[in-house]
Amino acid sequence: MNPAAVFDCFTAYQKTAAMQAAVDIGLFSAIAAGANTVPAIAKASAASPKGVRVLCDYWTVQGLLVKAGNSYQLTPEAANFLDRKSPAYLGGVMGFLNGPIKPFFERLTHAVRNGGRETVGSVETEYDGWVPFAREMGAMMFPAAQAISKLVGPVSGAVLDVAAGHGLFGIVLAQANPNVRVTALDWPNVLAVAKQHAAGMGVGDRYTTIAGDAFTVDLKGPYDLILLTNLLHHFDREQCTALLKRLRAALRPGGKLVTLEFVPNEDRVSPPMSATFPLVMLASTARGDAYTFAELDQMLRAAGFGQSKLHQPEDSAQQIIVSI
Amino acid sequence: MNPAAVFDCFTAYQKTAAMQAAVDIGLFSAIAAGANTVPAIAKASAASPKGVRVLCDYWTVQGLLVKAGNSYQLTPEAANFLDRKSPAYLGGVMGFLNGPIKPFFERLTHAVRNGGRETVGSVETEYDGWVPFAREMGAMMFPAAQAISKLVGPVSGAVLDVAAGHGLFGIVLAQANPNVRVTALDWPNVLAVAKQHAAGMGVGDRYTTIAGDAFTVDLKGPYDLILLTNLLHHFDREQCTALLKRLRAALRPGGKLVTLEFVPNEDRVSPPMSATFPLVMLASTARGDAYTFAELDQMLRAAGFGQSKLHQPEDSAQQIIVSI
Repeated sequence: MNPAAVFDCFTAYQKTAAMQAAVDIGLFSAIAAGANTVPAIAKASAASPKGVRVLCDYWTVQGLLVKAGNSYQLTPEAANFLDRKSPAYLGGVMGFLNGPIKPFFERLTHAVRNGGRETVGSVETEYDGWVPFAREMGAMMFPAAQAISKLVGPVSGAVLDVAAGHGLFGIVLAQANPNVRVTALDWPNVLAVAKQHAAGMGVGDRYTTIAGDAFTVDLKGPYDLILLTNLLHHFDREQCTALLKRLRAALRPGGKLVTLEFVPNEDRVSPPMSATFPLVMLASTARGDAYTFAELDQMLRAAGFGQSKLHQPEDSAQQIIVSI
Repeated sequence: MNPAAVFDCFTAYQKTAAMQAAVDIGLFSAIAAGANTVPAIAKASAASPKGVRVLCDYWTVQGLLVKAGNSYQLTPEAANFLDRKSPAYLGGVMGFLNGPIKPFFERLTHAVRNGGRETVGSVETEYDGWVPFAREMGAMMFPAAQAISKLVGPVSGAVLDVAAGHGLFGIVLAQANPNVRVTALDWPNVLAVAKQHAAGMGVGDRYTTIAGDAFTVDLKGPYDLILLTNLLHHFDREQCTALLKRLRAALRPGGKLVTLEFVPNEDRVSPPMSATFPLVMLASTARGDAYTFAELDQMLRAAGFGQSKLHQPEDSAQQIIVSI
């Protein structure tokens, strides 16, 4: 029997390290810009010919480069997601995914034994990992932000973006709807990043902020729409329900709550990204999880929402729930 | 375009962490022993139900478990390689692969820029990572050790096992050939492990040792056969040639050198394990690499060997070269 698949798990961390090195030196970008041989790529990326040769052969085996003779080309995926000049460039997300989140995984065995971290982890007050998150993870969230904007259709009025982070969800909605005013809620150091993004993307004049903890801060309002993106999974059901009650109270009658989440199916082993996401919460929080739609619907109802509907956007691995 | 394959690279380290946690708590072994539901597995592995549920669903998505309703079963690969009671159990190798080797990858970007580590890394004198290597990596090397034994056929006389590590290569050869006496060469703390293995596997009375550096220690000899397994890749061509000259001088006329290596094809991007192995050497040594057969043959000839022949064993991802 071939141990390759098992061996791959033992050494998978090397793949992340090889991606970090490739992103750091701009390997894929150098090839996209026309450097195709080891000497040319090495020169363009200010790296050693040996290091470049090893890395290029590695990524050829792993399927992100194609090698013909001594010449390397990007696969379509690499060209789309790993060339810094591509609008869909994702390399920056390593600043978060291979940055502040990584040390949590050093203690995963303990978290498995314990049912979570012994401290609150990434949801601690003003956790400084959310700044690199806000700076880098927006790139990953464009398709979901566009899906939300498309799903809710034309809107106007006051929108609250809870735990706004990079701010993309509110910003993309404001770009599509000139009469939308966004209020972004997050920690002060994170809001600085969101405000910068809002200004850079042309909606800075319709962008205000609330600094603080979503569980306790004055939410102001009322709002016509509330965006609750990638927040619930950090908390247990009681905490989620308590937060949802606060949001319900901040909505205008007839207002909508739009939740972006990793929503595993009832089998809890599909779709892949939502089904494996609980591992990240187990490692990085005390009580977080990914909830099925039935579980989320129950929390939403307990918080006073009526009907909720689950949507699977085409271009995102996550799911969207619209609640009224 | 789906970013799943690229995203998988960003977070691949989480897969290793999930495997470490599963190995640490004995998740696969508990399921092999008949625990199939979350409460039963949690009890058998002294872990939390939530942690076990998250880990089992994760490994179902990753293809090492199968879930039906609330019941988990091992795939054939998991049963063969990840159940502690299986003779082919490999979980222990994480003690090396996810242990002393891992920190080298924290500085991979620097190694890519520099063409290798700035210090000798894993080949430093009495590097303490070789003790966990010797303790754990034998499990991974059984198929290759058996392939070597089969390839060389019946032998007798004095065998030198250079950088013996766990000792498996010499030990398996001695088990198959009652008139073989093995001399194992390695650092003293590593030899303690090899001797223990030799005694446990019934060849302790035909097992002697030389403690020291293969480049400088008195090799004694002459030998009928020299085993040179997984050593050359740590060094550059000049160092390899110098070592091969010493080994050639320690062989009896008509004696054979058997080299186990990661030998990439001329294209350097196949077969997968040998083609990606240079990354490990780039990260962990100053000047190591994986060499093609043409490169190795050139070093062997420069060291005085005549004919060398490359073999691909069926049950190993590595290659064997027999030189006379």
